[in-house]
Parts: sequence; C-alpha cells; structure tokens
Amino acid sequence: MSLEQLRQFLLDSYSLPKEESDLMLSNFRLFEAKKNSQLLDCGAVCQYAYFICKGCLRTYFIDEKGEEKTRYIAFENSFVSAFASFITQTPSAECVQALEHSQLLKIKQADFYQLVDTYPTFAKLYRQSLEQAQVFATWRIESMISMTAKERYENLLERMPQAVLRLPNKHIASFLGITQESLSRLKARK
Amino acid sequence: MSLEQLRQFLLDSYSLPKEESDLMLSNFRLFEAKKNSQLLDCGAVCQYAYFICKGCLRTYFIDEKGEEKTRYIAFENSFVSAFASFITQTPSAECVQALEHSQLLKIKQADFYQLVDTYPTFAKLYRQSLEQAQVFATWRIESMISMTAKERYENLLERMPQAVLRLPNKHIASFLGITQESLSRLKARK
Repeated sequence: MSLEQLRQFLLDSYSLPKEESDLMLSNFRLFEAKKNSQLLDCGAVCQYAYFICKGCLRTYFIDEKGEEKTRYIAFENSFVSAFASFITQTPSAECVQALEHSQLLKIKQADFYQLVDTYPTFAKLYRQSLEQAQVFATWRIESMISMTAKERYENLLERMPQAVLRLPNKHIASFLGITQESLSRLKARK
Repeated sequence: MSLEQLRQFLLDSYSLPKEESDLMLSNFRLFEAKKNSQLLDCGAVCQYAYFICKGCLRTYFIDEKGEEKTRYIAFENSFVSAFASFITQTPSAECVQALEHSQLLKIKQADFYQLVDTYPTFAKLYRQSLEQAQVFATWRIESMISMTAKERYENLLERMPQAVLRLPNKHIASFLGITQESLSRLKARK
C-alpha cells in the first residue's frame, strides 16, 4: 500500500517505469511510527532517510535551557532525514520525531547512496529534495533574521497551511520561535 | 588561468578528463568582481551561479531596520549563488556581494541546468554543493537557535578560520548576529 504510494509518486513526478521503481523500492522497508515517537536522538549518527507516505515528521534541536526548537516540518510525499548527519555520517545536532502516527518508508544510508549512484532518476529525486531543503532553509534563516513574529506566522500560513491546521500550537510556536501565548494572540487576530 | 583552476578542481575532485571539462567550461565566463561590489540585489531574480577561483562572496538579507544580516560566506573552490532564487527563479530575499576583489567564473541558470542534465559529473558536483549548503544551513540554524555568542564564535573559528582571518569584524559580527563590540570582547578573550 505505502510502497505503491512511492511508486506512484515516482511515476507521477519522474515518469519512472514500474520495472525500474520495483528495483529501487526493494531497498525500502515499511515502518509505522507512533505519534511522538523518536526516530533519531540528538548526538546519534543518522543512518536512515524516510519517505513520508502518511503523517508528519519534524527535526528539532535542544537549546542550552533544554527547550526543543523545531527546525523543519514535513508532510506526505517528501523525504526527511537529519540530512547534515546523514550526509556527513557524524553525530547529529538535531533529533527526528514523528508528530503524527505516520506510515514511512525507510532506507539505509549506504543503500540510499547506492541508488543515487545507480539510478539517474533517483539522483534527480535526491537533488530536487536537496533543492527544496535549501529553499526551505534559506526561508527559515530569512524568517529568523529579518521577520517579525507576525510576518513569520503569516509566511508559515502561506507556505505550509497544513502545519497550522494539523499540528498542536506548541510545535507551531516552537517552529516560529515564539511562546504559545503569542501564537494564540496571532491566531485570534486573523 | 581561472578556467584552468576549475578544470584542475574537476580533475582533482571528480577525475574528470580534460575533453569533458573543456565542453563544460565553455559555458562559463570569467568575471572580475571588485571588493564590495554587488552581484545580486535583493528582490532581483538570480540568473547566475559563481565558482570562486579567488576571493570571497557572501549572501545577506536586509532586516526591517535596514541592517544587513549575513547568511552565507564562501571562499575559493566553491559554487555560490542565491540558490533559493536560482532554483525557483523567483525574486531573491537575499543579496550577493563580493567581500574581496574576486576572480569568478559565472554561468547562466539555463546553461547550468543543461550541464546538470547532460553530464553526470556536473550533476554530482551540483548535488555535493547542495549537500554542503544543507550541512552549512543546518549548522547556521542550529547556531542561531541553540548556541551562545561565545559558542557561535568558537564554532566559526573551527569551521571557517579563513573567515575570521580574512574578513573585517563588521561582516563576522553580522554573520554571528552580534555587535562589533561584543565580537572584539570575544576576540580579546581568546
């Protein structure tokens, strides 16, 4: 069922024929993650990338006060990993967590790079995931550096309405770098 | 001279034979950028990527108070662009500027993607540039979210000693998100 979803995604987005996607998909394993379960602890080396069939993942840091600070949130049909650690195979500064009960396809780092080196389509898929991640990260840094809380919230509503609709306030507030009280005030004003 | 440098880089890093690199390099143009010259204004669509043969480029945002906030700094043998705009071909939130007199090789966006689609080696080079950018952006966000000014400075010294050695305090302070006075105090303590 979930493998079928990734196959369909590869067909729709990259016109990938079934024979080729079958070979690729044999490297993925189905994985159900319960709501709030931890997929990677901070300090561990990230060994997996995840394709989200259903659900939502986030990556977050823990600051010196022990508070969780969300960096990245992703929903269906995207690849998620603690990419900095996944790429460099060094301990991860960020953790990965399921924010909803999620159906995932997971793939080991070595298998992932084997696919990148073997299949131009997979290399393109990875490149485009990295491009999306770069656009996201630039937006994230821009919003932290040069936007007010109100602008950040409006920007999030525009770019990721699903986040505001599906996730509890505490994660949205963490992502925006504001308190839950400030978020409630911003929501009330809309 | 500078084309020779990119050719050497492609040979050293990707074992790319001269015949192939000649074909690729015909898409690049030599470009001298004076110190402090602007390569892209905020709000413009980024049409070029730059390979730095010699010198230093930065990308920065302008906050609501009109202050410049540096996001990214790069030195020799790296590709730089306002990638979010370069990728999406939408107006750029960040500007690009030469911080030193720089020798660059520039390539148009359409030609760049043509090379990515034609040459697996160039696709790999681009993918690895995006990976580096992702590692950098994650570090940048982590440092803003969860490090003290002192930790950010020490981290910068470790990761990019050239930045501290080669650039004026005002750019380092802007990158670290602190005042020049705070930076002087941190430097004095080392």
